[in-house]
Amino acid sequence: MSPSDLSPDPEQELVTDVFARGCTSRAAFEDVTSKWASLALLALGEGSYRFNALRRRVDGVSEKMLSQTLQALERDGMVTRDVVTTIPPRVEYALTPLGLKVAATLRDLADLLEGSVDDVGAAREAYDERPGGKRP
Amino acid sequence: MSPSDLSPDPEQELVTDVFARGCTSRAAFEDVTSKWASLALLALGEGSYRFNALRRRVDGVSEKMLSQTLQALERDGMVTRDVVTTIPPRVEYALTPLGLKVAATLRDLADLLEGSVDDVGAAREAYDERPGGKRP
Repeated sequence: MSPSDLSPDPEQELVTDVFARGCTSRAAFEDVTSKWASLALLALGEGSYRFNALRRRVDGVSEKMLSQTLQALERDGMVTRDVVTTIPPRVEYALTPLGLKVAATLRDLADLLEGSVDDVGAAREAYDERPGGKRP
Repeated sequence: MSPSDLSPDPEQELVTDVFARGCTSRAAFEDVTSKWASLALLALGEGSYRFNALRRRVDGVSEKMLSQTLQALERDGMVTRDVVTTIPPRVEYALTPLGLKVAATLRDLADLLEGSVDDVGAAREAYDERPGGKRP
């Protein structure tokens, strides 16, 4: 894990690095921060959801995108998909222990940004008023 | 901003909600979690960077995408762009106080995922071996 680990010890741990293309941590980082995954994880951090209720919570997501997002998160071991044998059957989505930890860090980020809307709004206004502004 | 805002009280605080389309916090959340922005913020959390050095750090990003990403982050008040009048002039990117806080939460997320590669790898393997697996 240490960049200064120059020992030839064959037992040494492999370095994981979110910056390295090809590292599983980078793929997982991209999966959980993707447009709909981050909001789906935030929602599931509030409790388990059925598909349609989750779709209403994640305002703006299409059925197809939510379905693909949940499959990727299930594959990464963040989300569980349980079919409850009621009539009609229900499908419930919930977080795994790892998903809960990821959702908690995303909640910290969301809290920070919800508390910073005035700063972000002021920065945008100043940027857009600059000569040559309104670039993005 | 609040879906439950039915009160006529003009003094009540506006509710910011990262789930609400149209809320500045949701736009900022999407900006900082976008594919390249999150890695650029992580990199700038290590210190200021010149454009080309930052591009090397954010492995895989194109010049155009990094440029657009930095403009969006500058507009949101997360990143500063300073032109240093050397010969030739240098352009330095750094984080604002808000950008530093955002980068710190993204670093927490990256640390968590770098420490979870074994879990993620095992989950993926189990998923792909399931009948009908390998869906995403």
